[in-house]
Amino acid sequence: MADKNKNTSALNEKEGVSQPVSLSKGAVKQFKNFKKNTPSVSTLISGILDQNQTALSRAITIIESTAQKHQQQAKEIIEKCLPHANQSIRIGITGVPGVGKSTFIESFGKLLISKGKKVAVLTVDPSSSISKGSILGDKTRMEELVKEENAFIRPSSSGDTLGGVARKTRETIILCEAAGFDVILIETVGVGQSETAVHSMTDFFLLLKLAGAGDELQGIKRGIMEMADSIIINKADGENLKAAKLAKTEFNRALHLYPAKESDWTPKTLLCSALKNEGIAEIWEVVSNYFKTVKTNGYFQHKRKEQNKFWLMQTIESKLKSEFYANPLVKKELEKQLKALDENLTTPFEAAEKLLSIKN
Amino acid sequence: MADKNKNTSALNEKEGVSQPVSLSKGAVKQFKNFKKNTPSVSTLISGILDQNQTALSRAITIIESTAQKHQQQAKEIIEKCLPHANQSIRIGITGVPGVGKSTFIESFGKLLISKGKKVAVLTVDPSSSISKGSILGDKTRMEELVKEENAFIRPSSSGDTLGGVARKTRETIILCEAAGFDVILIETVGVGQSETAVHSMTDFFLLLKLAGAGDELQGIKRGIMEMADSIIINKADGENLKAAKLAKTEFNRALHLYPAKESDWTPKTLLCSALKNEGIAEIWEVVSNYFKTVKTNGYFQHKRKEQNKFWLMQTIESKLKSEFYANPLVKKELEKQLKALDENLTTPFEAAEKLLSIKN
Repeated sequence: MADKNKNTSALNEKEGVSQPVSLSKGAVKQFKNFKKNTPSVSTLISGILDQNQTALSRAITIIESTAQKHQQQAKEIIEKCLPHANQSIRIGITGVPGVGKSTFIESFGKLLISKGKKVAVLTVDPSSSISKGSILGDKTRMEELVKEENAFIRPSSSGDTLGGVARKTRETIILCEAAGFDVILIETVGVGQSETAVHSMTDFFLLLKLAGAGDELQGIKRGIMEMADSIIINKADGENLKAAKLAKTEFNRALHLYPAKESDWTPKTLLCSALKNEGIAEIWEVVSNYFKTVKTNGYFQHKRKEQNKFWLMQTIESKLKSEFYANPLVKKELEKQLKALDENLTTPFEAAEKLLSIKN
Repeated sequence: MADKNKNTSALNEKEGVSQPVSLSKGAVKQFKNFKKNTPSVSTLISGILDQNQTALSRAITIIESTAQKHQQQAKEIIEKCLPHANQSIRIGITGVPGVGKSTFIESFGKLLISKGKKVAVLTVDPSSSISKGSILGDKTRMEELVKEENAFIRPSSSGDTLGGVARKTRETIILCEAAGFDVILIETVGVGQSETAVHSMTDFFLLLKLAGAGDELQGIKRGIMEMADSIIINKADGENLKAAKLAKTEFNRALHLYPAKESDWTPKTLLCSALKNEGIAEIWEVVSNYFKTVKTNGYFQHKRKEQNKFWLMQTIESKLKSEFYANPLVKKELEKQLKALDENLTTPFEAAEKLLSIKN
C-alpha cells in the first residue's frame, strides 16, 4: 500500500514512515502549494491552521513515524495544534465486516458535508499493522466522499500494539480539529479491544448491525451493546425491511435491559439503507440531539476530561508494564514462576513478589 | 468486632492482627487441644492437615496480619498447605443486600453437609475494612450452619484495598482446602469491583435475585449478568411465587442474549425459598452438573490456571502502579499535568511521558 502511494508522500519511507498520505480532491489541489521537499514544521503548522489538507497529511505522517528525528517534530506540531483543537464532535463507528461501514460513512459523510460540515474519517485498525491491509486502504469504497473538498480520509496508522495505534489516532484527531474539521468519524473493524479504544476517544458510539434471521443479538461481542449510543440497522430496504423492523424491536428491548447511562441519554435503534441514502438524515438528527443533550447537561465536557485522564493513566500503566516485562531477568523468572504456578508449587502473590524483587 | 471476639483469639491484637477468629462448634471442641499461647508454625500446619479448625483459624489470622513477623510465617504456612490444596469446588455468591444471601448459604451449606461435604464460607467484603462491619460479622445470621462440625465460617479480612482483601481470601482458600474443606462458598456484597474479584477466584458464580414488580433486569450492575453461571431467584414462595416464575422467564431470556461461554455451560435460572428450604436440592444438582461438565471438558483445570495467571499479573501491575504513584515527585507532577490536561495545554501521552521521565 505504501508503495502504491509513494509518489504522494514527500517524506521518505526509509525515515520510518510507513503510512501513505491520503489525498482527497481538495488535498490534490492544495498539494501544488508545497514543494516535493519536506516542508519545515512551522510551514506544516501554519498549513494545518490554514486548513490545508496536504499539510495535515504530512503532519500526520510525521506523527505516525517511528523515526527518532520525527518525534520532536511531532511533539511540536501537536503542541501548536492543541489550542485550536477540541471543537469537533467525535463519532465512533463499529460493526462486523460486511455490515456496510464504508457505505454508511460515505452516505453519512456526504450528508454532513451538504450541511456545511467538514468531515474527517479516521480508523483504528490494529490488524492493518500485521499486513492484512487497512479497511480504508481501498479508497474506491468511499469513492464519492473522497472527492469532496471538505472530506479528509485517513487510514489507520500501523503499529505493533493497539495502544500505539490508538495513541496515533488520538493525536491525529487533534491535528484534524486544528485543520477545521468539525466532525471526526472514527471507524473500527472491532479487532480485539479496538472498540473499547475507539469508545474511549469519541463522544458518540454507533454500532452498525444487519437484520438477520431470528435472534439478532447473538454474536454481538460482550460489552459492545453497552457502549452503543445508537444502534443502526443497515440495509433496511426491499426484502430486508420486515426483518429490520423486527430487529429494531429486539434491539430496543435489549438496550432497555442496561442500566441508565451516565450521559442521561437513552440509546436508540434506527433503520437505514446507506446504499439508497435512506434514513441517514434521521440518524444525523438523533446524533444532533445527543450532542444538544450532553453539551447542555455538561456530560460532553465531563466525558472528554475523563477520557484524557483515562489515556494518561493507560499510557503510564502500559509503559510501566512493558518496561518491567522487557527486563531479561524478569522474562526468565516469569517463565519459572508460571511453571511453578501450574504445578501448584507457589501462589500468584508469592510468584509476583519474587518477580517484583528483581531490580530494573 | 475484634474486641467482642478477643477472648477467642490467642494472637495479640497489638501484633497487627485485626480479625477475630471464628469458632464453629467443631472448632470450640478442638480448641482445647491448643494452649492459649501462640502455637508454632509447624504445629499450626500439622493442625490444619489434621483438619483442626482452631489451627485453621489461627493460621488465617496470621495470613491476615499486617505485622512484619507474621509475613514469613504466613509464607511458610501457605507453602506447606499448597500441595494439599486445590481439591475443592469454589462457588462465588453475590446479590444485593436483602436478597437473602446468609439465609441461602445457611440452607445450601446444610444441604451440602448432609451430603457429607465439608463447607467453608468466606467473604470478600472490602467495606468491612472501613468499619462498616462484615456481612458475616453477625453470626446469628447463620446460626444453624455455625453449629455444624463440618462448617467453617470466616468473615472477610480487613484491608485498605480490594486487592489486599482478595489476596487474603485467596490465600485463605488454600488453607481451607488443605484443612479438608471440599466446598468453598465465597460471598460478596458487591461493593465496587468485588464481584469481579470473587468471580476471578471461584469456579462457579451464582447471582441471587428477588422477583420484583415489572422489569426484573433493571438495577443489575453491568457485567454481573455475564459472569453468572446461574441466577437464583430467592424468596420464591407464597405470594411471591407468581412474580418469581415470571422473573425466571425474563432472566432466561436475558441470559440467552449473551454469547456462549467458554465453559460450554449455559447459565440457568432457578427458583428457591432459602427460608423454607425449597429448591435448594435442585440448585445443588445444577451446580453438580456444571462441575461434571467442566471437569470433563477440561475447562475447570484451564480456568484455574488462567485465574492463577490473572492474579499474578494483577498483583504485579498493581504493585508497579502503586510504587510509581507513591513517589512524591510523581504526585506533584501528576497534579500539574492533570491541570494542563484540563486546560488542553497537553495531551495525555505527552503528560504521561513527562511523568514517566521521573526516576524512582
